[in-house]
Amino acid sequence: MEELKQRIREDGVVLPGNVLKVNQFLNHQIDPDLLYRIGKEFVELFKDQKITKIVTVESSGIAPATMVGLNLHVPVVFARKKKSSTMNDNLYTADVFSYTKRVTNTISIDSKFLSADDHVLIIDDFLANGQAILGLIDICRQAQCTIVGAGVVIEKSFQEGASLIKEKGVHLESLARIASFAGDEVHFVGEEN
Amino acid sequence: MEELKQRIREDGVVLPGNVLKVNQFLNHQIDPDLLYRIGKEFVELFKDQKITKIVTVESSGIAPATMVGLNLHVPVVFARKKKSSTMNDNLYTADVFSYTKRVTNTISIDSKFLSADDHVLIIDDFLANGQAILGLIDICRQAQCTIVGAGVVIEKSFQEGASLIKEKGVHLESLARIASFAGDEVHFVGEEN
Repeated sequence: MEELKQRIREDGVVLPGNVLKVNQFLNHQIDPDLLYRIGKEFVELFKDQKITKIVTVESSGIAPATMVGLNLHVPVVFARKKKSSTMNDNLYTADVFSYTKRVTNTISIDSKFLSADDHVLIIDDFLANGQAILGLIDICRQAQCTIVGAGVVIEKSFQEGASLIKEKGVHLESLARIASFAGDEVHFVGEEN
Repeated sequence: MEELKQRIREDGVVLPGNVLKVNQFLNHQIDPDLLYRIGKEFVELFKDQKITKIVTVESSGIAPATMVGLNLHVPVVFARKKKSSTMNDNLYTADVFSYTKRVTNTISIDSKFLSADDHVLIIDDFLANGQAILGLIDICRQAQCTIVGAGVVIEKSFQEGASLIKEKGVHLESLARIASFAGDEVHFVGEEN
């Protein structure tokens, strides 16, 4: 998605440890119009598929997932990282290790929001090691949903997440694929020179 | 907002301790089309005001805030409850006590996303004791923003939050105001019989 790549070039900041800071428009400050077009792009990429539900994980996945849901007019479910006071015990859960925060969170979705009739598109903001999306795949499979695919806004293609997801047999689409941060600059896949 | 009240009547579940569970459409599963109309309603309520930014707090505030931002074409900033690995030290912070979770979170916003030129509309999903919104007001005042007002989707009018916000001189608009849960049913303000 050219507009997204351009925005990453303009506003993204490369930090030590292969970290890309895009909090100007994606995960702290949000540009809702860009996010709407991101939602539309995912709908285009999965357009011949039946989709009944969008699934993501809090917090940064919520805005892009909601925009996909808005474009498709289907519900969005976001997995919780902590059990909320109003959650009951009928939960699907998965353990997710965060390499950036060095903690394991148990993510959970109330079982009433996923069923074997659901055709799920998983959406998240970032894909690096893939742990969050693998956790969501695990939860969707516990619920016997059909997983239509996974869509991520920014993929760090030099990390293992993309391969791990494909190994699970899940169709993956990423709107911007980063090949490297050589020289503290963002190099996209296919434009590595 | 009649559609919202109707949805609360249909899908809301009253739990012991004056807890209203609306995870069917607002804060676990999200109905994006309803949220879009909620965003539109807030824009209507604050229509004669200049608004340059929407401010909320993760996680449940993100979807309604993003929809207000989408309707107004202005950026949305969500305060973080934990410091992220890519956050620097130039932060506005406020301590927020959660009565439901019995914990204090320090919420924070990167100082580069708020300035004295900003006219901020604060949005959140729920208003009960008002601690989250008071924290956001505190942060906006540290940044010397003009606070246009605060908009909440569901207000528990029998708790002190609404009064505390008005005492701060902030214009408050709530789309559904709950007077009580007498008999384990939702009674809205103005319809208490």
